[in-house]
Amino acid sequence: MQAVWLENNALSLRDDISVPEPGKSEALVKVRLAGICGTDLALIKGYHSFSGIPGHEFVGEIVRASDRPERMGERVVGEINVACGRCAHCLANMPRHCEQRTALGVLNRNGAFTEYVCLPLENLISVPAGVSDEAAVFVEPLAAALEIREQITIESSDFVLVIGAGRLGQLIAQTLSLTGCNLQVSARYKNQRDVLDTCNISWIDEDSIPASYYNIVVEATGSVVGFAAARKAVRARGTIVLKSTYNEQVLVNFSSIVVDEITLVGSRCGAFGPAINLLKKSQVDPTLLIERRYALKDARAALAHASQPGALKVLLQVAGAKFE
Amino acid sequence: MQAVWLENNALSLRDDISVPEPGKSEALVKVRLAGICGTDLALIKGYHSFSGIPGHEFVGEIVRASDRPERMGERVVGEINVACGRCAHCLANMPRHCEQRTALGVLNRNGAFTEYVCLPLENLISVPAGVSDEAAVFVEPLAAALEIREQITIESSDFVLVIGAGRLGQLIAQTLSLTGCNLQVSARYKNQRDVLDTCNISWIDEDSIPASYYNIVVEATGSVVGFAAARKAVRARGTIVLKSTYNEQVLVNFSSIVVDEITLVGSRCGAFGPAINLLKKSQVDPTLLIERRYALKDARAALAHASQPGALKVLLQVAGAKFE
Repeated sequence: MQAVWLENNALSLRDDISVPEPGKSEALVKVRLAGICGTDLALIKGYHSFSGIPGHEFVGEIVRASDRPERMGERVVGEINVACGRCAHCLANMPRHCEQRTALGVLNRNGAFTEYVCLPLENLISVPAGVSDEAAVFVEPLAAALEIREQITIESSDFVLVIGAGRLGQLIAQTLSLTGCNLQVSARYKNQRDVLDTCNISWIDEDSIPASYYNIVVEATGSVVGFAAARKAVRARGTIVLKSTYNEQVLVNFSSIVVDEITLVGSRCGAFGPAINLLKKSQVDPTLLIERRYALKDARAALAHASQPGALKVLLQVAGAKFE
Repeated sequence: MQAVWLENNALSLRDDISVPEPGKSEALVKVRLAGICGTDLALIKGYHSFSGIPGHEFVGEIVRASDRPERMGERVVGEINVACGRCAHCLANMPRHCEQRTALGVLNRNGAFTEYVCLPLENLISVPAGVSDEAAVFVEPLAAALEIREQITIESSDFVLVIGAGRLGQLIAQTLSLTGCNLQVSARYKNQRDVLDTCNISWIDEDSIPASYYNIVVEATGSVVGFAAARKAVRARGTIVLKSTYNEQVLVNFSSIVVDEITLVGSRCGAFGPAINLLKKSQVDPTLLIERRYALKDARAALAHASQPGALKVLLQVAGAKFE
C-alpha cells in the first residue's frame, strides 16, 4: 500500500508497505480522510524520535474485524492511545497515560497517512450517520480541545484568552465559546480572523492584548513567544493552559509564578464521546478550518501547505469521496 | 532605634534609624520576636532590589494606635501585604495580590528586624493568650503553608511528597499531615529528619524518591534541582506546588508537562486566621523548628546561622522574654 514514511527525520512516500495484519482484538480500517496536525509537523522536525507512518487524525471504515464481524463496514474514528490495561495508570482509569502505551502515528505505532491502519476495536468509535467524513476527521483534535474543560472549570463570568488561532486554537475557541465565557482569541492571520468572524468569536491583535487581564489563558502556539504572551496576559491567581507541542524548552521565572500564584495546566488528548456529540448536534463546525485536500500521493505538498504560517486544516483524501 | 539595614545587597546594623511614624489607620508595634526566612536570605543575595529594613515574620505589641486606642498593648502578628483597597485585585477580594501593594520587609516597606514597625491596624491580628510568642512568630509562614490547602484539594487518599525539609518544608509537612494523606518528606539533614520523627511524619532520602509515584508534590526548596526532583516524582495528571522563592529562572520541558498533563501551582502567602487557629488548638508545633535565638545586635551572626545548609528557624529576640 501507499504510505507517508518518516525515518531519521526524513520524509518519503512509499508504495512498498504491506497492509498491516490486525493483532488480537484489533481491526483493520480503510482510511478515507486524514488530517494534518501541528504534532505531525513537529515530529517531522524531530520533536521526538519516530520511525514509521505518521498521522493520527482520520476517519475510515472497518474492513476486517475477526473478533467482531458485526462491526464490518462501520465508519469510525480512532482514539490514538493504545493502552496496556494493566499498569497503575490504566487501573486508575487513565488509559491515555498508560506507561506502556503506543500512540497512532506518534509513538511506536504506524499512523494514518496511508491506506489502511490497525487499532484495537475498543479504540474505534462509530461515527453517527449525520456527521460527515469532513467533520469526523476533526474528532481527535476536537476531543483534545474539550480536554481543557475536563481539567478546569470555565464559567460564563471568566475572561478567557486563547493565544494562537491555528488548527487547534480555532477548535479550542469554538468549544470554549459554548461556555458563554468572555472569550477573545489572539489571531495573527487574516484567514484565521475570518473563520473566527464566521463563528462570532472575538479576536484581538497580539500587540493589543491587555496585561494581567484574563483569569484563564490557553496557550495554543507551542512557542516561547506564545508562553511569554500568556504569562503577561494572565492575572494574579489565574490559570495558563499549555495546549500544544513545544519544540524547545522554555525558561520560566518561577518566582513570579509563585508571587502571582499562577497555575499552569498541561493538557493533551481528550475523550472522543463529547467531541462526537458536539458534531452530531452541530454545536461546532470544524469544517470551516478546511483549506484544501490533497491526494495521498501528494502528501509532501500537503505537508508543505500545512507548514505555511497561518495555515489551517489540510486533509489527505485517501479513499471515499472525490477530491479537488 | 536599632535596625538591620539592607542597601545595594549590603547588610549593616544601624543605630540611627528613627522610630517610624504611623500613618493614618496604622499602628506602631514594638517588636518582641522576629523570624528569619528563606526570602530574607534571598533578598540579601539580591533576589530583587530592596532597600531598607528586612524581616516579615514577627510578633509584637501595639504601642501606638491613634485611631483605635482600645487596641493599645495588644499582642499581635502582622499580615505583611498592605493593599490599596481600590484596584481590580482588591475589589476581587485578593488584597495580597494588590497591584500597588507594599510588603513588610520585602517590597517598599520597612520590615521587622528592628525595634518598632508600622502596619495598618487592619493588618494586625490579635494573638490569643494561649499562644506563646515563640509559636506566634510562625503565624506568617504557617499561613503560607496553609495557602496550599486553599488552592488545591488534598484528600486522605492522596500520595503527597514535600521536597525540602527546611523552615517552610517542615511547616508544610505539619499542616499536610493533618489531612491524613499519605505523606512523605524528602529531607537531607539529620536535624530536619529528627524534627519530622518527632512529628511522626515519614521522611525519605532524596535519592530514594520513587519516580512517577505521587499525585501531589510540593517543591519547597526553590532550586532547579528541587524542581527536577518534583517533576520526576509526580505521576501523570499530578500537581506540583511551587512553594518557595527561586533565585534563578528554570528551564522547563513544557512538552512533557503537556504530554503528562501535569499542573503547576504557584503558591505564596496565606490567611492568618486558620494559622492562628491551628496554634491555638496545638494542632501543629512550629516551635520544634527553633534552633537558636539571637539578640538584635547579633543579627549578622543570626543571618549567617540561618544561611547554613539544613538550618531551621533562627529568631531575633528584640524585646520581651529573656534570650540565651
